[in-house]
Amino acid sequence: MNKHREIAEFNLIKHYFSALTPARRDVQLGIGDDAALLKVPHDRVLAVSIDTLVSGVHFYSDVSPESLGHKALAVNLSDLAAMGAQPAWVTLALTLPEIDEPWVSAFCRGFAKLATDYGVQLVGGDTTLGPLSITVQVHGFVPSGEGLRRSGAQVGDDIYVTGCLGDAALALHHIESGGAVDVLDIAYLKRRLERPEPRVEVGLALRQMATSAIDISDGLLADLTHILQSSGVGACLELEKLPLSRSVADSLRKEDDWTRVVAGGDDYELCFTLPEVDRIQIGELANRLGLPITRIGYIEEKAGLRCFKRDGTLWVPERSGYQHFAS
Amino acid sequence: MNKHREIAEFNLIKHYFSALTPARRDVQLGIGDDAALLKVPHDRVLAVSIDTLVSGVHFYSDVSPESLGHKALAVNLSDLAAMGAQPAWVTLALTLPEIDEPWVSAFCRGFAKLATDYGVQLVGGDTTLGPLSITVQVHGFVPSGEGLRRSGAQVGDDIYVTGCLGDAALALHHIESGGAVDVLDIAYLKRRLERPEPRVEVGLALRQMATSAIDISDGLLADLTHILQSSGVGACLELEKLPLSRSVADSLRKEDDWTRVVAGGDDYELCFTLPEVDRIQIGELANRLGLPITRIGYIEEKAGLRCFKRDGTLWVPERSGYQHFAS
Repeated sequence: MNKHREIAEFNLIKHYFSALTPARRDVQLGIGDDAALLKVPHDRVLAVSIDTLVSGVHFYSDVSPESLGHKALAVNLSDLAAMGAQPAWVTLALTLPEIDEPWVSAFCRGFAKLATDYGVQLVGGDTTLGPLSITVQVHGFVPSGEGLRRSGAQVGDDIYVTGCLGDAALALHHIESGGAVDVLDIAYLKRRLERPEPRVEVGLALRQMATSAIDISDGLLADLTHILQSSGVGACLELEKLPLSRSVADSLRKEDDWTRVVAGGDDYELCFTLPEVDRIQIGELANRLGLPITRIGYIEEKAGLRCFKRDGTLWVPERSGYQHFAS
Repeated sequence: MNKHREIAEFNLIKHYFSALTPARRDVQLGIGDDAALLKVPHDRVLAVSIDTLVSGVHFYSDVSPESLGHKALAVNLSDLAAMGAQPAWVTLALTLPEIDEPWVSAFCRGFAKLATDYGVQLVGGDTTLGPLSITVQVHGFVPSGEGLRRSGAQVGDDIYVTGCLGDAALALHHIESGGAVDVLDIAYLKRRLERPEPRVEVGLALRQMATSAIDISDGLLADLTHILQSSGVGACLELEKLPLSRSVADSLRKEDDWTRVVAGGDDYELCFTLPEVDRIQIGELANRLGLPITRIGYIEEKAGLRCFKRDGTLWVPERSGYQHFAS
């Protein structure tokens, strides 16, 4: 118990965040009281998602604090993107082993920059002493009935992913295993690992189109499986259609290397399903956003997820994804 | 990084909480998707508050998990109470060093029991591996313009507190220092430390009465000072008026022992201010709820907080309260 430690008042979050995130008109009362008071538009439902990042589990303790601030918010905005929600507010519970002012300042800079990019205001928080961990809750708006869910995939739907897969997993692989890699590759991969861009615009555009959506945090196979199970359907994927950066494509030496791509996780891309009739619209959306959106397979009735190689034979991964806690 | 650990799917929170908290009609989509979808009544604003409890900082690692589950939610409901908010939803981010099923099951039981008492539904969560810590965010409703704030105390207002002060601090003192105490006292004090009752009904009743309110988590002096600073006023307290349990009253051997009462924290009672004309109404409220509500002082113009002893002389505490992080 540190209950009796004599320490003067220091509202860490308030100190570093005041004026760093935008002031929204729907915030009646922000940081500094027992609770924030917030006004949700009457024709919207509130989407909320909470995620924790723990040092040594989700990130290395020596990661750049600015990147960590970015990522802590980005992975949560990615959840809102997968619901088709417009981000609005965020709360931050920060547990720190000590007050390292340059560290805290850099963390807040990374967090606040991304918050500002998406018009998100910090409305509450808590700072505590303890082993480094960060819990963020994001709040967004969806028109009633238009939220994207995992449960609506239909037999015959196409399956899409945004961006490229496997970059973050390859970055981690290099950090952990070393090996000769091009300097440009390293910079690219590290950015993809540490500074994921939440696909908020894609999620908003998919609201009245996609039959299901999820963000890829645990790996394509694990997350697509959530869609399949929620929707009561199965799927076929074609490995050769998976969108890969040059770095990842070059890293595929043997068949097992594909496991890293489909089960490595930390992609923070969206995976979603759509009827075949919407193919042209998706092409237009990709062009408008300047972001690859790639059709990688289709939904079928038979339960389970099957991956096919170029030669048409089945490929079975070593493992299907990362999950916290096993039964 | 545990990224590559091979563990099968196990949604801890879903497993233990399904059917444990009530199903509310304003929850369009609960646990199990990327975000929950929630409907706020059109004439209400949303009150949100987030708090983290860390093992070794806010509780001992050997505390009863059922009590811990209760307290993790109670301290957050206490924040809603201080806003005059009606509790509605909660999210839980649980970081555990390992899966100890009896522990998790007992934690969830304590949490869910209190959630059910207040009609609160668990709508989201995250479970991660790491040093034991618990982050809870609560969500409640307030009629627009009726939220209780810290900033409205007026010169001449009476100052009140609910319940008794200093019980939790005395319990901690006994745990840490030992000493001969009556068995009945120990049971009472421990319950007050581990199972605080959020004063939700009081907060709701104060909505159109109190000029300011706060919940006492860091100690009366520290928390009342937040009201004074937010309101730009000062206050006088009379020590002999502070409501004390028999256990705490008996523990006051020397003058410094008062410090534990006013600065020990963990009370989770409400402190609020009201115009003198409302004294009768407060008496009626206390009777209706069967809860002591005690007038302990008054607001004055002169900044700062002064405590007077029975003989009319000033008493200066050793320290004014617990705070995380010092500058």
